[in-house]
Amino acid sequence: MTAELSSSTATGITAPAGFRAAGVTAGLKASGGRDVALVVNDGPVKSAAAVFTRNRVAAAPVHWSRQAISDGRADAVFLNSGGANACTGPQGFQNTHATAEKVADLLGVSANDVLVCSTGLIGEQLPMDKLLPGAEAAAQALASDGGALAAEAIMTTDTVSKQAVFEGSGYSIGGMAKGAGMLAPGLATMLVVLTTDAALDAAALDQALRAATAVTFDRTDSDGCMSTNDTVILMASGASGTVPDTEEFTRGLTEVCHSLAQQLITDAEGASHDIAITTINAATVADAEAASRAVARSNLFKTAIFGNDPNWGRVLSAVGTTDAAFEPDQINVTINGVQVCRNGGIGDPREGVDLTGRAVSVEIDLAAGSESATIWTNDLTTDYVHENSAYSS
Amino acid sequence: MTAELSSSTATGITAPAGFRAAGVTAGLKASGGRDVALVVNDGPVKSAAAVFTRNRVAAAPVHWSRQAISDGRADAVFLNSGGANACTGPQGFQNTHATAEKVADLLGVSANDVLVCSTGLIGEQLPMDKLLPGAEAAAQALASDGGALAAEAIMTTDTVSKQAVFEGSGYSIGGMAKGAGMLAPGLATMLVVLTTDAALDAAALDQALRAATAVTFDRTDSDGCMSTNDTVILMASGASGTVPDTEEFTRGLTEVCHSLAQQLITDAEGASHDIAITTINAATVADAEAASRAVARSNLFKTAIFGNDPNWGRVLSAVGTTDAAFEPDQINVTINGVQVCRNGGIGDPREGVDLTGRAVSVEIDLAAGSESATIWTNDLTTDYVHENSAYSS
Repeated sequence: MTAELSSSTATGITAPAGFRAAGVTAGLKASGGRDVALVVNDGPVKSAAAVFTRNRVAAAPVHWSRQAISDGRADAVFLNSGGANACTGPQGFQNTHATAEKVADLLGVSANDVLVCSTGLIGEQLPMDKLLPGAEAAAQALASDGGALAAEAIMTTDTVSKQAVFEGSGYSIGGMAKGAGMLAPGLATMLVVLTTDAALDAAALDQALRAATAVTFDRTDSDGCMSTNDTVILMASGASGTVPDTEEFTRGLTEVCHSLAQQLITDAEGASHDIAITTINAATVADAEAASRAVARSNLFKTAIFGNDPNWGRVLSAVGTTDAAFEPDQINVTINGVQVCRNGGIGDPREGVDLTGRAVSVEIDLAAGSESATIWTNDLTTDYVHENSAYSS
Repeated sequence: MTAELSSSTATGITAPAGFRAAGVTAGLKASGGRDVALVVNDGPVKSAAAVFTRNRVAAAPVHWSRQAISDGRADAVFLNSGGANACTGPQGFQNTHATAEKVADLLGVSANDVLVCSTGLIGEQLPMDKLLPGAEAAAQALASDGGALAAEAIMTTDTVSKQAVFEGSGYSIGGMAKGAGMLAPGLATMLVVLTTDAALDAAALDQALRAATAVTFDRTDSDGCMSTNDTVILMASGASGTVPDTEEFTRGLTEVCHSLAQQLITDAEGASHDIAITTINAATVADAEAASRAVARSNLFKTAIFGNDPNWGRVLSAVGTTDAAFEPDQINVTINGVQVCRNGGIGDPREGVDLTGRAVSVEIDLAAGSESATIWTNDLTTDYVHENSAYSS
């Protein structure tokens, strides 16, 4: 097998051939850190696909990019942190449009082939007098190993940048992501750019991307709050000349997305536990997802895990709010290997559960079928409350 | 108008004629406080109605009481704190049954006319060797002014007992409630007993009760977590001889329920703000409820209010996750009187919003119709996380 998730992720989105990237400082962030990123596809192929937030209150760049990607082509993606450009009205959309035009001029491409992503505080206009010079600086700084700086430039409350690379058979897939709060992708807070030098058309990219995100980002639910700006973009340069096996490509893309999603969970605001909630023996995958997600969104369950308390009653009370097929007296719950709930009642002693580590595994057996799904979430901590009460986003 | 919410609520459920109540210590609570309550309807009418949690993982006493109330008659309600008797299997149901039989023997009535409610930790068996003697002590302590002690005996993490009385035209309505966490009634944690000396049959009680709870307890959503034990019971003694006007009775019952629901919100675990989220100009009442509830369940909105931050972007991003009818560029949001969001964009300066008081009013104008609904909730605080990570419930 040559296909595997690479441990060398330093170059991220510029690992595949045919891409250049940059991350520079435009002055949008109070911290003075890098805050604009540019990713350019040098081809020869320029196919692309994207999925966006399902939030009906979508940011201006989401409206722009949704339209721009509709022809299946993207030459570049421009991203900024330091402002979400959401709930900013006609002026906000004009600012996104002006940004795309500026980048298009700098690169000598059509503005309709420039995607735009923004992240940061909702409800404030972007300072265009800083953003447009930032675009110029980014264009000048483009480099074939610029992925790491681009990944750094899109961070907001992230404490580390997130990158991943998959080495396929004659091609590779790279990715970068940001996101630490308002993190329940229904697909301004979670931005992901994926690149590949495989030769694939937009339809193939779209199919692989939807398959990969459905079981990775869509199952990441740190705090139950869906953002206005979530965007995942996949671009293919075809620079490797390789036409990959569809199944391998989708699997590789899923691995990259999974790695990035795990990095998001690990860096989630204020979290002290990373929790994988797996529902097994469900009648349908949708049932398994619904049961796991209900637990992932229970503040009482999440605070219990913060307190290292294997409170399985809070698991059952959350599952009980769903429409999933199950009989209450047949549910089993296992936390970190201990079956604390058996047949809907008292199982092995909860004292046997060790929750002192960061990783927590919760398995819910619905005894209603053979399907399963995992939702990844975090605990609810005093630090989460502190960070989100003190920081406007 | 003789019909008004009485400010003298000291007697609660024993304000109406024809009821006796008691609250005693059986030893279920580690604190040594009162932990079992008994409410007896001395008639001449013994009609009753009840609504229960919609949680599919329902506690043993919910299963029992749902069956016992089905004939529209209840002679008594026995309640305990110190244990929810939820997820306790066949043994748990047998314990509830034995409790009802014991109370029936003590009162000389049928066990099928004794309702049972429990609240406390999920997933542990009740200590019957303490509970049954507690029932005896409660029966001996029954008094026509025992409402206040009963209200005290059902408290768990509540810091104060909750009672309300409505004085109607020739009759009255009394109520008591408990609940401080796992507080999102879909109708183990929220228990309510309502009494009246009006002469009404079970069908009339049921109709009034469903109307009253739909706009009070069903719109109370402190932490989004639906309990396994929520129960609201309404009993009529007919001791006043008054057959009330249906409309006045329903309004009075709604006022009592509203008062109790507000007392629950005010005493919610760790809360520092009581938040009324009203959606106006919605296409339907269901849309208005959905929009308000989505905001009430946004941890990011709730932490922002904890931080005295009128973060309207978090309001819009929550509303955007619903199916309610609206156009994103027509929504207005007003927080404590300041219209911070106008036409989906930036409104008056957020600096003008004063959030230093405990009461917070959020008004969301969907500009899509003429219906409205309010959901009452709390902020998400470090104290909430602390209390729910340290306390098993």
